[in-house]
Amino acid sequence: MSTRLGDLVKSLGGELIGDPEIIVTGIAPLEAAGEAHITFLSNTKLRSQAAATRAAALIAAASEVEALRASFHGAFILTDNPYAYYAHAAQYFVSLTAVPITPGIHATAVVSESAQIAATASIGPHVTIEAGAQVGEHCVIGAGSFIGRDARVGAATVFHPNVTFLSDCHIGARGVIQSGAVIGGDGFGFANQKGQWIKIPQTGGVRIGDDVEIGSSTTIDRGALEHTIIEKGVKLDNQIQIAHNCHIGENTAMAGCVGVAGSAKIGRNCTFGGAAMILGHLTIADNVHVSSGSLVSRSIHEAGQYTGFYPLAKNSDWEKTAAVVRQLDGLRDRVRELEKLVRELTSKK
Amino acid sequence: MSTRLGDLVKSLGGELIGDPEIIVTGIAPLEAAGEAHITFLSNTKLRSQAAATRAAALIAAASEVEALRASFHGAFILTDNPYAYYAHAAQYFVSLTAVPITPGIHATAVVSESAQIAATASIGPHVTIEAGAQVGEHCVIGAGSFIGRDARVGAATVFHPNVTFLSDCHIGARGVIQSGAVIGGDGFGFANQKGQWIKIPQTGGVRIGDDVEIGSSTTIDRGALEHTIIEKGVKLDNQIQIAHNCHIGENTAMAGCVGVAGSAKIGRNCTFGGAAMILGHLTIADNVHVSSGSLVSRSIHEAGQYTGFYPLAKNSDWEKTAAVVRQLDGLRDRVRELEKLVRELTSKK
Amino acid sequence: MSTRLGDLVKSLGGELIGDPEIIVTGIAPLEAAGEAHITFLSNTKLRSQAAATRAAALIAAASEVEALRASFHGAFILTDNPYAYYAHAAQYFVSLTAVPITPGIHATAVVSESAQIAATASIGPHVTIEAGAQVGEHCVIGAGSFIGRDARVGAATVFHPNVTFLSDCHIGARGVIQSGAVIGGDGFGFANQKGQWIKIPQTGGVRIGDDVEIGSSTTIDRGALEHTIIEKGVKLDNQIQIAHNCHIGENTAMAGCVGVAGSAKIGRNCTFGGAAMILGHLTIADNVHVSSGSLVSRSIHEAGQYTGFYPLAKNSDWEKTAAVVRQLDGLRDRVRELEKLVRELTSKK
Repeated sequence: MSTRLGDLVKSLGGELIGDPEIIVTGIAPLEAAGEAHITFLSNTKLRSQAAATRAAALIAAASEVEALRASFHGAFILTDNPYAYYAHAAQYFVSLTAVPITPGIHATAVVSESAQIAATASIGPHVTIEAGAQVGEHCVIGAGSFIGRDARVGAATVFHPNVTFLSDCHIGARGVIQSGAVIGGDGFGFANQKGQWIKIPQTGGVRIGDDVEIGSSTTIDRGALEHTIIEKGVKLDNQIQIAHNCHIGENTAMAGCVGVAGSAKIGRNCTFGGAAMILGHLTIADNVHVSSGSLVSRSIHEAGQYTGFYPLAKNSDWEKTAAVVRQLDGLRDRVRELEKLVRELTSKK
Repeated sequence: MSTRLGDLVKSLGGELIGDPEIIVTGIAPLEAAGEAHITFLSNTKLRSQAAATRAAALIAAASEVEALRASFHGAFILTDNPYAYYAHAAQYFVSLTAVPITPGIHATAVVSESAQIAATASIGPHVTIEAGAQVGEHCVIGAGSFIGRDARVGAATVFHPNVTFLSDCHIGARGVIQSGAVIGGDGFGFANQKGQWIKIPQTGGVRIGDDVEIGSSTTIDRGALEHTIIEKGVKLDNQIQIAHNCHIGENTAMAGCVGVAGSAKIGRNCTFGGAAMILGHLTIADNVHVSSGSLVSRSIHEAGQYTGFYPLAKNSDWEKTAAVVRQLDGLRDRVRELEKLVRELTSKK
Repeated sequence: MSTRLGDLVKSLGGELIGDPEIIVTGIAPLEAAGEAHITFLSNTKLRSQAAATRAAALIAAASEVEALRASFHGAFILTDNPYAYYAHAAQYFVSLTAVPITPGIHATAVVSESAQIAATASIGPHVTIEAGAQVGEHCVIGAGSFIGRDARVGAATVFHPNVTFLSDCHIGARGVIQSGAVIGGDGFGFANQKGQWIKIPQTGGVRIGDDVEIGSSTTIDRGALEHTIIEKGVKLDNQIQIAHNCHIGENTAMAGCVGVAGSAKIGRNCTFGGAAMILGHLTIADNVHVSSGSLVSRSIHEAGQYTGFYPLAKNSDWEKTAAVVRQLDGLRDRVRELEKLVRELTSKK
């Protein structure tokens, strides 16, 4: 599938410097791009690759043109945010070749009579939809997925195959849930009575806003008494665990393998690197950024970047430093003692 | 659905101080509770919220009554363990409104003729049950679940939708397996032969006791030659990995994202915080408690609380401390040298 | 099922010292082995258990015979690599009792007319296979699995039940994918535009070589523009996350809960301990070994063992050392100041 460069820019905005009649067939990275590709420069460290690209057109900031002109002779698409433009352009190309959705309910799907399925929705093979559930217009529910009793799926939301979306969970419009994700499993709640664990029924649901993406094998538990809440625009990567009664603010994004313990309240526009862990009942302010592999053990009230992981070293070096870590308070005491002794020596002068 | 307060206390025990005719409709947290709710005080830090609650009845320790009487005018339910009482009361309310189980095998389920399915069990849509498997009385097997050859599921055990329970795995009575969990995948066993990995067939099974709960997307591998063993009363949260030939003792509980490497032997009544990791072939004593994010690299022979994670800091501060960590043995040597010099200086006096 | 010892050695190689007519029924660990078992000694620490084993035959290195002869009176199977021999022998026993594969497509499977399914392949209940997909000879596709549009599955590859293998993903011959794994979910790619996350379509696929094993609930994302690549012989345990555009070299093995962020390039013959984390866009050389629980934050250009986790301690001790860690740069400054003062004192002598 291909498009005129002029049509693409007309659709997406930005300024075209070059021939609008050029035919382009897709997007490729700077070094892999061929003569029918668009490419993009979003990181100034890659300027030399941009200068050498064979692409037909380069998405770039206006400030880059002068330096690149000498060696790059293709068209420019100028924009303030080349990376976002790339995202939109990639969506544009995907829309040209997307397999059209076939509305309707597959013959093998088991759908309760009391479920409400929009006429434009597509329900795949081996899907189960229970009583009272609602599936909105233009939704795609992939093969093998499960939608529980009284669950609600907003318009144009896509479940990839083998998603489990349990009873009394709601998700808004334009959401995406990747395969293997489980929404609405029981929160981990037990009371200890003389050494036995007594299960606390988890009677809350999950409430997920519009434009939320949930990654493969990510799990979001239902609340104990009240709901677990994921606000609009949140993006969750794969293998993330969100425990019961968490509240995650708008547009916060989490990379793979993050874990959030119960009742944590996380602000808006935060980011969490891979495998960051947030303990329960904490409050995290807006615009907090946590580095990969860092454990958040106390609430964070101030925006900023936070980190806490042990630096990697050759194993033999790590063994040496770890041995000192184990005795660090002793080392501090020795420094204190030295300070005292040196003070005494100095004062005797 | 609602109940007389007197009926609830008659059923669950405890002492009621107040009118048994009061009608209550459910449980809610202290601050959210309305006039038809029961609530509970299990944490003395929340005493002021308890004093202000609008709930019809408060589950509390007898010692709390005097202080709360002045401001809280509802009924008291007195018990030694308010949190456990809350758990039982929540179960009581759930039982009032639970959707009744429909016994029988759904028309779309594929069940081997040699499988034994109790007449009171409920087998959902798109389930597969292989030859020789046994499913006990009052079991519920959720949609899309798989039960392998010769597997056994004890009475009243519930599989939520999309559980995978492979051949030669057994689970006892009253178990719960959340969606996406995989029980009985092959353990990770390979022998290295001249750089190639030779697969070691995993011919053991998994043996799980009574009253075990297994969270969403948790994986428990089958043993290599012998079984992986999960004793009764164990509670596993989501996204946990239990490798082959582990043995986990009674009533041990693990929070989300914990990993246990092969052949670890873990005692009874232990708890593991989220993302704790236990290396292989270790032995952990009874009543050991491991903090979140901590890696257990050696056996633990003594009960107690153990911790090992790098403290979180502002990223700029972390960069400074991490730089010192990398040179810690050098720093210790410098302290030793200083001690020697100061001793010399002191002795010269 | 049983076999003559002579037949086994004839099939697998090695030198038999003992009666080839002995009948053996399986393999067991040194201590559990009975008189009809083979066992193996692959770790010299277990020599005393080997001396006491009741097994009919012991797989061992030739150098062990003299020491063991006095107490162990069974047969020896001599080999340079007893652990690899055990792997082959276990495969041999499994092959004797394996349930034969039933070729064909189960009546409940939904297979596109344009999919190409080899006549010897076995497609289980409730499987969905989309248009253009190819499934090779002797493949086994477990119940509930999904194979997307234009995906390719090489000969003799096995998908355990409930695997999700999405469009444009390829896997080679003799692969194994455990239950719950998701191959080809969208990579986590979003461009930030004025605080909103714009989805970057993930239009690459996943390319997996021959002889690759992928564990339960492991996720491998498709590439953004180009493919995510897993070379032949790679072994991935459970709950692993491989992000978009990673490239993992031949025969590299990763234990459970490892995470690899986007575009990381990992060499051949590497090993990663459980829960190791590799940040994005890094390059890891061949023959690098990363310890469990270690975060790799910079590229590694030299083979060797690398480690970085905080050592575990009793919680009270950890609290003391962690307090010092938070002030480590201050402690270093104090040591510097001491060094200066002591130099001054010394020079005054």
